[in-house]
Amino acid sequence: MAHATSSVDGEDVAAEVVRALTAARRTIAVAESLTGGAVTAALVDVPGASAVLRGGVVAYATPLKASLLGVDADLLAAHGAVHPLVAEQMARGVREAAEIEGAPADYGLATTGVAGPDPQDGAPVGLVFVAIADAEGCEVREVHASGDRSAIRAATARAALELLAERLAADETRPPSST
Amino acid sequence: MAHATSSVDGEDVAAEVVRALTAARRTIAVAESLTGGAVTAALVDVPGASAVLRGGVVAYATPLKASLLGVDADLLAAHGAVHPLVAEQMARGVREAAEIEGAPADYGLATTGVAGPDPQDGAPVGLVFVAIADAEGCEVREVHASGDRSAIRAATARAALELLAERLAADETRPPSST
Repeated sequence: MAHATSSVDGEDVAAEVVRALTAARRTIAVAESLTGGAVTAALVDVPGASAVLRGGVVAYATPLKASLLGVDADLLAAHGAVHPLVAEQMARGVREAAEIEGAPADYGLATTGVAGPDPQDGAPVGLVFVAIADAEGCEVREVHASGDRSAIRAATARAALELLAERLAADETRPPSST
Repeated sequence: MAHATSSVDGEDVAAEVVRALTAARRTIAVAESLTGGAVTAALVDVPGASAVLRGGVVAYATPLKASLLGVDADLLAAHGAVHPLVAEQMARGVREAAEIEGAPADYGLATTGVAGPDPQDGAPVGLVFVAIADAEGCEVREVHASGDRSAIRAATARAALELLAERLAADETRPPSST
């Protein structure tokens, strides 16, 4: 299994995070906007993903971010969908949405941003936020991606998977939940 | 914009359905299991998708099919996730889940099946169901895909988009909702 983190298409990063999640016996759910399912699909591509991936929500239309993920509708009305707090609430919301038998997913990963070709909600093309949430908090990263619509979406998916990989590497220093 | 329906990777079919949905002023939501977001991502790849695609749910873990899409939990317990009625309920459920201001999506598209490498719930690798729902009913198609995990998922995504394309072509004979 590949462990490199420099893959252009994110495949190696996806394999790395599935390996790390499996080793840690932790689960993940994904909330996607501009990436439209590409982050989740990259994880599903890895054999063994079913042990760690619960699923996710593609909240492409802005109102679904509120109705399916619990993002504050007033926040969306005031700032639009491309905002760090929207990314945070998407990541926190999908953890809860993917609850099974009372247990939320251990991690929630989210993407929101502008793939273009036009600016959105006053945000420029290429401005992207990715977020990783767990029970203890949430980290949001701002990304400035360039290129066409497809390139921006691929860069966003890669940035989200890299944020998750870094979090998992940091969390490996925690005591393992079991052997 | 491409109109061919024979693309190996489904890109041309995705462009065709976005064009047809745009012309008909209709919307779609997608519920995915084994395809893990790939169908939704193929639609997002098409410029102009935001006018017709609301989003979707990746219900990869079986319990999420009940909790996020309203699939009958007793049906899942009795027959597992790879069943024509599960595909139907996913398609119907995602239409409703993607409701905006009281209006469900016009169409719900769903995938469920076994990508392998192991059989699941007594169903063989490659057995897949895709479904298309609208306000008036639902059509389910059984597909037998071959090849490895990646090939089965790609064939499933293509079959789902083709089912949608055929439904849209048939629905073009309806009176347009507006010019």
